[in-house]
Amino acid sequence: MRTYLDCIPCFFKQALEAVRITKVGENLQKKVLDELAKAVSKFPLTSSPPEMGKIIYGLVRKITQQQDPYAEIKKRSNKLALGIYSKLKRKVSHAQDRLLMAVELAIAGNIIDYGVNSFSHRKEETCVKVGGSLDIEAELTRILNQESKLVKRENERIFNYSQFKVELKNANHILYLADNAGETVFDRILLEEIKRIEQDKKITYAVRGGPIINDALLEDAYECGIDQLAEVISSGSDAPGTILSLCSQEFLKIYKKTDMIISKGQGNFEAMSHLSRPVFFLFMAKCPVVAKDVSTICKLPIDKGCKVGDIILLYHGGK
Amino acid sequence: MRTYLDCIPCFFKQALEAVRITKVGENLQKKVLDELAKAVSKFPLTSSPPEMGKIIYGLVRKITQQQDPYAEIKKRSNKLALGIYSKLKRKVSHAQDRLLMAVELAIAGNIIDYGVNSFSHRKEETCVKVGGSLDIEAELTRILNQESKLVKRENERIFNYSQFKVELKNANHILYLADNAGETVFDRILLEEIKRIEQDKKITYAVRGGPIINDALLEDAYECGIDQLAEVISSGSDAPGTILSLCSQEFLKIYKKTDMIISKGQGNFEAMSHLSRPVFFLFMAKCPVVAKDVSTICKLPIDKGCKVGDIILLYHGGK
Repeated sequence: MRTYLDCIPCFFKQALEAVRITKVGENLQKKVLDELAKAVSKFPLTSSPPEMGKIIYGLVRKITQQQDPYAEIKKRSNKLALGIYSKLKRKVSHAQDRLLMAVELAIAGNIIDYGVNSFSHRKEETCVKVGGSLDIEAELTRILNQESKLVKRENERIFNYSQFKVELKNANHILYLADNAGETVFDRILLEEIKRIEQDKKITYAVRGGPIINDALLEDAYECGIDQLAEVISSGSDAPGTILSLCSQEFLKIYKKTDMIISKGQGNFEAMSHLSRPVFFLFMAKCPVVAKDVSTICKLPIDKGCKVGDIILLYHGGK
Repeated sequence: MRTYLDCIPCFFKQALEAVRITKVGENLQKKVLDELAKAVSKFPLTSSPPEMGKIIYGLVRKITQQQDPYAEIKKRSNKLALGIYSKLKRKVSHAQDRLLMAVELAIAGNIIDYGVNSFSHRKEETCVKVGGSLDIEAELTRILNQESKLVKRENERIFNYSQFKVELKNANHILYLADNAGETVFDRILLEEIKRIEQDKKITYAVRGGPIINDALLEDAYECGIDQLAEVISSGSDAPGTILSLCSQEFLKIYKKTDMIISKGQGNFEAMSHLSRPVFFLFMAKCPVVAKDVSTICKLPIDKGCKVGDIILLYHGGK
């Protein structure tokens, strides 16, 4: 996805939220915004938003001298999500369609996103927050209710589960692109379900190559037990989305040889929606610009288009 | 009020909204944001937000070569508000406390604000919009309901009506600082009520000195019949708030000799809340930063603080 002008105010908001997490004073906060202002005027709108994300969080790291401001938040997210693991498993085992429930939960896990979730426009539309931390259970209930509505209207264009099942059956090697820490526990639920159905599938789970917002790193994948189900690798890039030109050769080799790509999170969608090869994008639409972009891709009429807060299983056949 | 870092993303959003009103293409829109980025890094946080507002809309005018992009919107606002003038008058004449009702309506009129009202965080909190234009009647009902609640909790600190009545009685010459076009009709209701109670009061009504967002100019004041009740003057400045250092000598002369100042709108509050002389600020809090600033001034505890959407009659005794 290209960058829209509406993304620019949002870049400043993201930068401010990120630098405030480091708890530095107002002077350094202002310095981050000033440096961002310089970067923005040179940033081509043909680039994708995660390319600017990489610049923003790079500035925060450089100016605050803090390499991973979200380290604590990530640990807490993992712990919170691991705490409800058994409950999630029960939901799957009691479900009429276990795989569908596992997919729904994996997308629901995408609420764990500190880069966007405190944005004011999401207040009533998406996250439920309790005392500054996500109330995962309340949010989960909300999303699952919404999901039933979604499935009910059988909008295969933004929730293409039937195609997902077909491709999953046919694939030998799946590349699963991770998004946030904590969300990895929800990914594990889906990976376990895939393995239960077809235990011979080879799965590679790719995390970011360095600290970026609350995105999962190798340690998060291990902490959440992903290594028991999949080969865990790094993309080699610390952009908040899989920008192929920044990824390592090792990652690209696997990217090329896998049969099916499951891409989690809005950042990965923003970074990859223009690619020539098919990808399944599983995420929650977290801003109006992305929601509109999804509607355009899916050729949805405005009144029935994708909205902020919608959960999406989008099969993008490649260009 | 100083500029807070949270204002910076908002400056970009305002710039984008303003330049889009001119209907120029994306290249010129981007140019406005790029020029704003340069200005922001040089902008001291000790300045008030309307000083940046003046820069933003100056850039829009310069780059788009459109002197008054909001001209049509202002005309429509005047027409809409004049269309409900009789209804507003009836509300006042049927009210138990006519002056209070006129004050409430004057503040309610402050919803007519295109510079801020399409901000996403206000969607559910403030304006009711119908087909892109304000549904003034629905919004009015909402605000008047809210106002009853406000008066009920007798929070004199943000709605100091008793002090307002006292000062009004004692003043000989009132300076009324206007805000938006259309809102001028609501101001007229209040001016008429003041004149009905004490017909000898001298009132001066000051509008902006040049086009800035949808703020009222001389022609708007005349169009809405203000000249029948008050001497209409220009502040001499085209900032979206009364920044004294930018105002004309003629305006400052009147500013100094009047007994009472009634200041309408958030922009005037932002520009004047630090002044040494007393002012009555009548406005609706349209963003979290201003709401927080009001709470600080009024020494309100956080849980009972001013919120976005609150209507305010703040007596600021001067510093």
